[in-house]
Amino acid sequence: MKVGIFGTGVVGKTIGAALVRRGHDVMLGTRDAHKKMEEKAADAESVSFHDWLGKNKKVRLVTFAEAAAHGEMLMNATAGHASLVVLATARPADLKGKILIDIANPLGPWADGQMELFVANTDSLAERIQRAHPALRVVKSLNTVAAHIMVNPAGLAGGDHDVFVAGNDPEARDRVTRFLRDEFGWKTVIDLGDLTAARGLEMILMVWLKLWAAFGTADFNYKIAR
Amino acid sequence: MKVGIFGTGVVGKTIGAALVRRGHDVMLGTRDAHKKMEEKAADAESVSFHDWLGKNKKVRLVTFAEAAAHGEMLMNATAGHASLVVLATARPADLKGKILIDIANPLGPWADGQMELFVANTDSLAERIQRAHPALRVVKSLNTVAAHIMVNPAGLAGGDHDVFVAGNDPEARDRVTRFLRDEFGWKTVIDLGDLTAARGLEMILMVWLKLWAAFGTADFNYKIAR
Repeated sequence: MKVGIFGTGVVGKTIGAALVRRGHDVMLGTRDAHKKMEEKAADAESVSFHDWLGKNKKVRLVTFAEAAAHGEMLMNATAGHASLVVLATARPADLKGKILIDIANPLGPWADGQMELFVANTDSLAERIQRAHPALRVVKSLNTVAAHIMVNPAGLAGGDHDVFVAGNDPEARDRVTRFLRDEFGWKTVIDLGDLTAARGLEMILMVWLKLWAAFGTADFNYKIAR
Repeated sequence: MKVGIFGTGVVGKTIGAALVRRGHDVMLGTRDAHKKMEEKAADAESVSFHDWLGKNKKVRLVTFAEAAAHGEMLMNATAGHASLVVLATARPADLKGKILIDIANPLGPWADGQMELFVANTDSLAERIQRAHPALRVVKSLNTVAAHIMVNPAGLAGGDHDVFVAGNDPEARDRVTRFLRDEFGWKTVIDLGDLTAARGLEMILMVWLKLWAAFGTADFNYKIAR
């Protein structure tokens, strides 16, 4: 499948690399592809983007608009505060009817070691994206888990933990559910219904960050015991 | 131990009944004990308060202020919007140095089937209570789980799921952790650190409500897979 991923951070790179390994045709969208391609500074994973791309030659680095045009399925892996700006650079015809898996979190400013969300409680980033692009089929998913677990749930606790989907289009939720199962091996994808459920899925980041601090690792995930 | 519980809803009743069965000396605080005692209307569990009290004679129904005076440990099981008003009726000397396990959630108004919290993101109900009563040792806990699971975690998935504590006093968090293990049988109590973690623990209610709707039951809980 042709997949267009917005964002070249840890999430975009991890998912892009995993999908090309699975034989998919992946374009990674960024603001300035030429500049990004030459980026030599080491990132959080101690690898420059330039070196990463050298090891993942099948991932094509393009503009956001080109990634949007390319993808039959789209994935938003941008920083939350940039998501709406990025999506506004796509041609409307390139978004129409497509599924966007929204992985972004509405991370706001940090102050005194405390994080806050720039949207929460009565609205969500996913709903803002959906309102700005009514012809997109936005499905919130994967944003509750660290990047390495997104693409390899089996690597944690034998895969016995959960991921969620929320979106206004039931058929889109089903397609994303199958995609997560088939491509990454998620055993349990919990359908939380319409996109208002994205509020909770984004707010749970405030728990995730405290767990991360308490455990000293991002190697954990939620499981709903039933 | 002498325990003072604020609130006579499902949470207050469930915890009160469980603690008297364990031999504790429990007072349940309410606004007007005489009126509450005679309440004949069936509640959400199809039992009137009058009948419930008849079956749980060892639980003593008193005013909020009397429950505060009685308890060596205090528990806030009021509706979130009432918590500060209720605690203001206690004599300051009856709160000083005591642990308050804050189980309340800041449930705001419902509109169009959507819930919102009346405090979230940059503050929490637990922090408001702590600021209003600096001499209390507020520990947020148990608010992430249905009442019947609070007192009987073993009844769900063999007890293989988690509860959290957050509070500014490490010794108070440790005491609550032991209390939850010893009295109710919680296997894993995750310490999330200071009371700012209550923000996430309250915001996760937005996920809980969607899970409740999706599953059609409150018989579930979070486990952190590691």
